[in-house]
Amino acid sequence: MNRLYHFPLSPYCRKVRLILAEKKIEVELVEEKYWEPSTEFLRRNPAGKVPVLKIDGMLLSDSTAICEYIEETVPEPPLMPRDPAARAEVRRLMAWFDDKFYSDVTCNLVHERVHKKLMRGGYPDGRAVKTGAQNIKFHIHYMDWLLDHRRWLAGDKMTMADFTAAAHLSCLDYISDVDWSLSAPVKDWYATIKSRPAFRSVLADQIFGFPQPPHYANLDF
Amino acid sequence: MNRLYHFPLSPYCRKVRLILAEKKIEVELVEEKYWEPSTEFLRRNPAGKVPVLKIDGMLLSDSTAICEYIEETVPEPPLMPRDPAARAEVRRLMAWFDDKFYSDVTCNLVHERVHKKLMRGGYPDGRAVKTGAQNIKFHIHYMDWLLDHRRWLAGDKMTMADFTAAAHLSCLDYISDVDWSLSAPVKDWYATIKSRPAFRSVLADQIFGFPQPPHYANLDF
Repeated sequence: MNRLYHFPLSPYCRKVRLILAEKKIEVELVEEKYWEPSTEFLRRNPAGKVPVLKIDGMLLSDSTAICEYIEETVPEPPLMPRDPAARAEVRRLMAWFDDKFYSDVTCNLVHERVHKKLMRGGYPDGRAVKTGAQNIKFHIHYMDWLLDHRRWLAGDKMTMADFTAAAHLSCLDYISDVDWSLSAPVKDWYATIKSRPAFRSVLADQIFGFPQPPHYANLDF
Repeated sequence: MNRLYHFPLSPYCRKVRLILAEKKIEVELVEEKYWEPSTEFLRRNPAGKVPVLKIDGMLLSDSTAICEYIEETVPEPPLMPRDPAARAEVRRLMAWFDDKFYSDVTCNLVHERVHKKLMRGGYPDGRAVKTGAQNIKFHIHYMDWLLDHRRWLAGDKMTMADFTAAAHLSCLDYISDVDWSLSAPVKDWYATIKSRPAFRSVLADQIFGFPQPPHYANLDF
């Protein structure tokens, strides 16, 4: 049985979960408190990070490496275009969300509000939370601009870039930190992706001490 | 003419420069002070980061997306294996250096000692420098362990993982922050990669206010 060592509100783990589900690859989820890594966990990934995927008799780590591996070994349905320039655009946007959106937004909000408490790392840093809440507007506007030109974030087809963005936004939506009224095209895009069967597992997540807000799993939010 | 917008001591730019040179793709280098981004630069890459590559009539950004594009469009000489599991290992190690090594080491040393001064951002934070100098030992030991099992970092063949690691280490070597006596296998590996023609441009770099130490460009260091 395939196994994914993950943490529910990690956008990197959610990205992998969504892509596995789109490819209809079944996986057992094992929750890992990555901030208290066991020797066993560090043996699986010396970087001490989630996700780690046990698949095909191997342990794979780094979320991007995992997604590329899945795409190469299970090509259907394709989540990457064939043309190299179009692939570069998908990868640019994956990095946009995993690097820039993460440091501008996800880290300032999800890490401060949720993970710090779970790690017993103290109270949220109010300045970081304010910065994250401010930065998300720029990103929503950027997505709005992309969706004004394209049907999906990276072009005409749904790709890994959409799942990467949705992974981050779904973590923020769990803590009610997305103002969906900022952009109708972004809201429509998220509603479409949220209604996919692959999203069900993510919408069922429950974090101890942080009850799901009612709109989170509602497809008509 | 292809053009790379870069900054000399950016490990991400060096990775792209090394891979372009290995593939014998000529490129004009344009230095970009990415911390004072012009409107023109932000138009080229709204993320405000280097490297940006102008190639085939397009502007590509994100160093990993650029490297994958080069590998897909100019397959010879191959810098990625064909087997998906081996490719996942190359990508895991690229992320290891670009994410973990960067935040553990490169950022604490190169950013603090060099970029902060160039940006007029104040004096180096002594605690960060100490942390970086401590952390590099763990990483050299990890590389030593990999090279005890393998000829190159990701396996039997030289890959992008080697150039990613060498890009970071060469930046640190420019400011004499690598203790090569820590591991003979790592020193031998770096000596081999440093002597490749593709490395010449990186060894010729001169940073204003930071003269090259004599060992930096010496192949017998």
